[in-house]
Amino acid sequence: MASSKPTYKHFLVTYPAPYIAHVQINRPEKLNAFFEAMWLEFRTIFDTLSYSPDVRSIILSGAGERAFSAGLDVEAAAQDGVLAEKEGKTTDVARTAQAIKRHVEEFQACITVICVLHGYSLGLSIDISTCADIRICTSDVKMAVKEVDIGLAADIGTLSRLPKVVGSFSWVKDVCLSARVFGAEEALRVGFVTYVEPSKQKAIEKALGIAKLLAEKSPVAVQGTKELLNHARDNRLADSLRYTGVWNSAAIQTKDVKDAMLSGLQKRKPTFEKL
Amino acid sequence: MASSKPTYKHFLVTYPAPYIAHVQINRPEKLNAFFEAMWLEFRTIFDTLSYSPDVRSIILSGAGERAFSAGLDVEAAAQDGVLAEKEGKTTDVARTAQAIKRHVEEFQACITVICVLHGYSLGLSIDISTCADIRICTSDVKMAVKEVDIGLAADIGTLSRLPKVVGSFSWVKDVCLSARVFGAEEALRVGFVTYVEPSKQKAIEKALGIAKLLAEKSPVAVQGTKELLNHARDNRLADSLRYTGVWNSAAIQTKDVKDAMLSGLQKRKPTFEKL
Amino acid sequence: MASSKPTYKHFLVTYPAPYIAHVQINRPEKLNAFFEAMWLEFRTIFDTLSYSPDVRSIILSGAGERAFSAGLDVEAAAQDGVLAEKEGKTTDVARTAQAIKRHVEEFQACITVICVLHGYSLGLSIDISTCADIRICTSDVKMAVKEVDIGLAADIGTLSRLPKVVGSFSWVKDVCLSARVFGAEEALRVGFVTYVEPSKQKAIEKALGIAKLLAEKSPVAVQGTKELLNHARDNRLADSLRYTGVWNSAAIQTKDVKDAMLSGLQKRKPTFEKL
Amino acid sequence: MASSKPTYKHFLVTYPAPYIAHVQINRPEKLNAFFEAMWLEFRTIFDTLSYSPDVRSIILSGAGERAFSAGLDVEAAAQDGVLAEKEGKTTDVARTAQAIKRHVEEFQACITVICVLHGYSLGLSIDISTCADIRICTSDVKMAVKEVDIGLAADIGTLSRLPKVVGSFSWVKDVCLSARVFGAEEALRVGFVTYVEPSKQKAIEKALGIAKLLAEKSPVAVQGTKELLNHARDNRLADSLRYTGVWNSAAIQTKDVKDAMLSGLQKRKPTFEKL
Amino acid sequence: MASSKPTYKHFLVTYPAPYIAHVQINRPEKLNAFFEAMWLEFRTIFDTLSYSPDVRSIILSGAGERAFSAGLDVEAAAQDGVLAEKEGKTTDVARTAQAIKRHVEEFQACITVICVLHGYSLGLSIDISTCADIRICTSDVKMAVKEVDIGLAADIGTLSRLPKVVGSFSWVKDVCLSARVFGAEEALRVGFVTYVEPSKQKAIEKALGIAKLLAEKSPVAVQGTKELLNHARDNRLADSLRYTGVWNSAAIQTKDVKDAMLSGLQKRKPTFEKL
Amino acid sequence: MASSKPTYKHFLVTYPAPYIAHVQINRPEKLNAFFEAMWLEFRTIFDTLSYSPDVRSIILSGAGERAFSAGLDVEAAAQDGVLAEKEGKTTDVARTAQAIKRHVEEFQACITVICVLHGYSLGLSIDISTCADIRICTSDVKMAVKEVDIGLAADIGTLSRLPKVVGSFSWVKDVCLSARVFGAEEALRVGFVTYVEPSKQKAIEKALGIAKLLAEKSPVAVQGTKELLNHARDNRLADSLRYTGVWNSAAIQTKDVKDAMLSGLQKRKPTFEKL
Repeated sequence: MASSKPTYKHFLVTYPAPYIAHVQINRPEKLNAFFEAMWLEFRTIFDTLSYSPDVRSIILSGAGERAFSAGLDVEAAAQDGVLAEKEGKTTDVARTAQAIKRHVEEFQACITVICVLHGYSLGLSIDISTCADIRICTSDVKMAVKEVDIGLAADIGTLSRLPKVVGSFSWVKDVCLSARVFGAEEALRVGFVTYVEPSKQKAIEKALGIAKLLAEKSPVAVQGTKELLNHARDNRLADSLRYTGVWNSAAIQTKDVKDAMLSGLQKRKPTFEKL
Repeated sequence: MASSKPTYKHFLVTYPAPYIAHVQINRPEKLNAFFEAMWLEFRTIFDTLSYSPDVRSIILSGAGERAFSAGLDVEAAAQDGVLAEKEGKTTDVARTAQAIKRHVEEFQACITVICVLHGYSLGLSIDISTCADIRICTSDVKMAVKEVDIGLAADIGTLSRLPKVVGSFSWVKDVCLSARVFGAEEALRVGFVTYVEPSKQKAIEKALGIAKLLAEKSPVAVQGTKELLNHARDNRLADSLRYTGVWNSAAIQTKDVKDAMLSGLQKRKPTFEKL
Repeated sequence: MASSKPTYKHFLVTYPAPYIAHVQINRPEKLNAFFEAMWLEFRTIFDTLSYSPDVRSIILSGAGERAFSAGLDVEAAAQDGVLAEKEGKTTDVARTAQAIKRHVEEFQACITVICVLHGYSLGLSIDISTCADIRICTSDVKMAVKEVDIGLAADIGTLSRLPKVVGSFSWVKDVCLSARVFGAEEALRVGFVTYVEPSKQKAIEKALGIAKLLAEKSPVAVQGTKELLNHARDNRLADSLRYTGVWNSAAIQTKDVKDAMLSGLQKRKPTFEKL
Repeated sequence: MASSKPTYKHFLVTYPAPYIAHVQINRPEKLNAFFEAMWLEFRTIFDTLSYSPDVRSIILSGAGERAFSAGLDVEAAAQDGVLAEKEGKTTDVARTAQAIKRHVEEFQACITVICVLHGYSLGLSIDISTCADIRICTSDVKMAVKEVDIGLAADIGTLSRLPKVVGSFSWVKDVCLSARVFGAEEALRVGFVTYVEPSKQKAIEKALGIAKLLAEKSPVAVQGTKELLNHARDNRLADSLRYTGVWNSAAIQTKDVKDAMLSGLQKRKPTFEKL
Repeated sequence: MASSKPTYKHFLVTYPAPYIAHVQINRPEKLNAFFEAMWLEFRTIFDTLSYSPDVRSIILSGAGERAFSAGLDVEAAAQDGVLAEKEGKTTDVARTAQAIKRHVEEFQACITVICVLHGYSLGLSIDISTCADIRICTSDVKMAVKEVDIGLAADIGTLSRLPKVVGSFSWVKDVCLSARVFGAEEALRVGFVTYVEPSKQKAIEKALGIAKLLAEKSPVAVQGTKELLNHARDNRLADSLRYTGVWNSAAIQTKDVKDAMLSGLQKRKPTFEKL
Repeated sequence: MASSKPTYKHFLVTYPAPYIAHVQINRPEKLNAFFEAMWLEFRTIFDTLSYSPDVRSIILSGAGERAFSAGLDVEAAAQDGVLAEKEGKTTDVARTAQAIKRHVEEFQACITVICVLHGYSLGLSIDISTCADIRICTSDVKMAVKEVDIGLAADIGTLSRLPKVVGSFSWVKDVCLSARVFGAEEALRVGFVTYVEPSKQKAIEKALGIAKLLAEKSPVAVQGTKELLNHARDNRLADSLRYTGVWNSAAIQTKDVKDAMLSGLQKRKPTFEKL
């Protein structure tokens, strides 16, 4: 199956099980730090996988043992001229930045992304992981939110997303204002990650186990669950209940619901069609 | 006191202390699974208790040791025809579903509900418990959000409420997308429950202790506290502060405030009139 | 440096390191309980420090070992006549209360406040600490939300802020409805505090360490980080991303960003001008 | 058909055409001023009509030529004791007031209400008419928003609804702050009414014409149109578009849509089943 | 009475009737164009009048016949250096601009402002008039929104306020994008002004008539009416109804309500105490 | 200039003046009714024009005298199978519908669209015109909102947009619930259109005049004005003022602002670079 799939320059994409893709940031000699061309390829990969009926979950990790990613490659960024002060172009720079963000938000719509943070997982790593649905880390992970150290310029969304991902605003302000390194135990306690595993291999296995579980669910139900949870995160309770009611009045008509109900009654495992 | 109270078919309602009612889901032979007539009676009970001046707190548990509730009785639901696809009736089904939800939301207004989760506490159990104010569980509880497994059709509100009850969005997505079982330790860590007790009896005792504490408070103050906390959950900080100010400008005039202040000064326990 | 600074009647203000002020509530013989004149002086101090270019962080604690603050001095409040029921004046009382609140909110704008809770930290202590950015406590702290016990009248904002500071709504309702005492371990678990230290001295040292770290950051970046985190807390994800984009399109032009980037490239520590 | 319908003490209810009810406030000797028992009967009538499958539109007018309604009967209100200052009961009064309001809002859900304002249409008349969907007036109408003259106490919602019904905030503030009388020409210009007719009889005929037109439409489509317009009034554009999409994904499945499409193709008038 | 009042350099302040102040922009030789010192004095005046118990309404006009104001004095602004591009100071400029805006918003809180637009009423004139409660113009007025012609830099709020003051978004975009001049007839049709008068003198008389009418009302009721209308403009219907209920539960207790009710019953004019 | 531009099958695109495109719906023999392929081409055209630096305004009209557009070609839609009830595909249909809507919204971002409604302008014509910035109509126009007649299925956004474009909710409900035809005089009175012209030719000339005026403005300023007006339409006043402040702190740095200011001082017409 993987043979017919495209290959990429800066990322390693494999298909360890049906409906599951594993994307590895593949620049281990530079601790998987990002430069602009990588970022564009990253978007292309997620675009492609998001619209593939053969993919329901994506596991995201870094290649090699040392890092998920050291973050933005600052030298490269300096050369890209993101900071160049061309008169009248400021707005356009901001526009481009926003366009990138909007894209990142959208890779969540149809698939479930499980992010495995390991080794150095700095700056952009946190931005990317807050876009994922589920976060897992290794016990030796070294994480940090680095935006404050470069004056916000490279922000891809951590400051917007972290307060919605983690309940403790005291902790969020602490790590965002200080840019200090935090580890697995702390990340688990505040709920930034859901699982801590002793090694990268174990963490990938854990992610794969979850992904397999999700692959058995009705894709319509998974998509609806994500849509309704995201709606709930951003809206008042009464509005979410109202939206849920309208959503379900359509969803209730899908064949998947009947299949799931019947399977439950007959104590067998249902199989769902591709979306 | 309980003698003059009505009795119910599917629920056991007792009054273990002044101002406190204990409602037990009473279908232990079927792990307290719900069918439609039970659900209607459940609403009636909460309606009745909510408007009783003799009730300030409700403890909610399942009868028997084995389960709070196994959730929706799928066989019964299939027969009820919730899933029947009668043309043109879709909207009405959704309307009914929403009406039920709205009701559930409203049983919170005047009383405090403490939910004791024990044994199997699946599907609808989580829906119900997210409507409660305070959640306690036993150390052997087995909980799961099951909506994804039946394609959302039976949703009474977990997907809308859970992201507002628990801070870790990573954990919320994990349990809602996977429908996996989770236990007491995990529920405490993410803040879904406030206390874990070694047995159902101990958990009921804990709930009773809290309920007794609340029964001593001014009912006006308890109601205001809940109103303002719920407002804060759904609104921006500045709006909540503004609403609090307007709310308090009326509340400050109640006799309860003066009584509470005087009691504080005189180091004695105040007694508050019924609402 | 401190010599030229003003002194205060009810507070001790010192400057333990560059850009850092330490404010101690200084009425230890009364467990640092507040009365109205203290409150007004408290506002004056924060006003003064907020606009000082020499202050980037404030550490806030109680004087003495026994208490951060026992809260509102109820006897004094009763004499102040907050509760006096003069006809037609109700609204004005509420207005005054709201004006105070609004002020408290604003001391966050330009500086970072680290609150060290120790000993008795009751009622108003919690109100004040929820306005701070980062909370630290000692292992022997005794905290309680006391509003419900005086019928909400003295509320300075805990009910509005606590649900936004802590993820577990079950816990928030528990402590706000019961007014029970909770300790360090519980506060850490739910994320109300970020660190627990064995003694007041260690907690102050921890706060000082954080404050020193923050003092090295670009003030523009710190301010932006706080603005964007606060915006994220109160708004939807899409709105926060949009706001971040517009904010950064201006911020990207500050000299601090270039300095920070260059320092990163040159592996040296940047120095930032006063705001 | 009307023979089997209930009769009322303070209102005249007739059925001038299929699916259309005409409700007249029937206390012409007092200019149709409201007292509490009337208000309760008014609610009962709208409750009954709202859930009748035989009613799709309601025309609302006053009996007699002189007035739609002179508003609240202040003498009666004074005797009802709405203003009595019983200690500790303030909140309950407000609760009752809010309950009434909520009810008024809900009579809009399933039917279309066309309000015919004629003669004196003061105070409560404006409150009621802002709850209606469509407003028509006679050329000699005398309207006024009177809340400011009794210190807001009797407010049933004009101040909340008028800014959403009329575009000119300058005009809204003018009439609400001054309580001055305004007439038909002004009401048409600012869009408070949609039609001005020379006499009450002509205005009722106009209302009847609209109601007949609406009676021919699919009830599902009428209900959806109202739901989506009301949603749009209260929400951002992007949210309304999103809600519309979800709403339509359910509505598209009703038989009415197919019938309407086919009728359009076959150039004939469709007939729709009762809701 | 006016004798003891302060006098101002750039504004003429008179007191034509009890509780009414008339503020005239007094630089007629320059068509009342604003420069920075004028703006600061303008703020001082509104601060002073807003907190005076002797002022309930303010009429605002330009001195002389030719202009309300030609807007910002661009030459002066250029010298002020608003546009100077000092590195790192951008944010501060924006902050100052925002502080000014916030102030403008607040002069509405306790008094009613009636703006009389006459002659040239350009740019800043529209900004100021959108902050007023009621707008009146002369038939020869020449109005224009000029922000687009100077690239938004001088915006004090027209773009934020105009869509909330006027219903026709087509017209709002037309005048804001084109910066074209529009006149009295058009302003009345779209609801930007409530009255058109043939001359400045007549317009002032009209404003005075409205102000006198408002001066007879209960100040508590006027303030509440404005608060609730402003809340309705910015919030959903259900939220406004809820807020109104809470607001009224406090307001219902003021002496003014009883006085107003009694006056109504006794057919006499009530007199209300100063706020 | 037009020679190098692409030509289209169902639309006529001309360039009557610098920076101005004129798009005509070109199926006059069918009253410019839309079918799916036309709709897709329509999107392509707006995509292309939106990103062209040579286009600042688009005038949109129908070809021929008889109609802007008769709306959706129902026969074609029936054949397209939009209404086909394939099991499990409902959601996807809704998704597609929403994708189309989102696109329509976005053609507004960088250019100004002026819509000239003439002759029959039914159904989809209103949907499209509510997406435009400015609406002009001929005196003989026949407009109608037709969604209610086909049970909402073809809705592209009128129900979401019309309440935000027009102030009178009474009128909006009237025309949306009745689907009745309305004309130019009524459209002008409620503010749906800004100008009524006696003939299609005159209306196009009017549109061209506006477009030329806009073409002289700074593109940065036009874009900002639209962004801020759209933000104001969807947000609260305080939020819009805050957003405006942040927006301007970036925009103030563009060369256009300095150019515009200098031109104003020097009484000459500025020329602005392409975006």
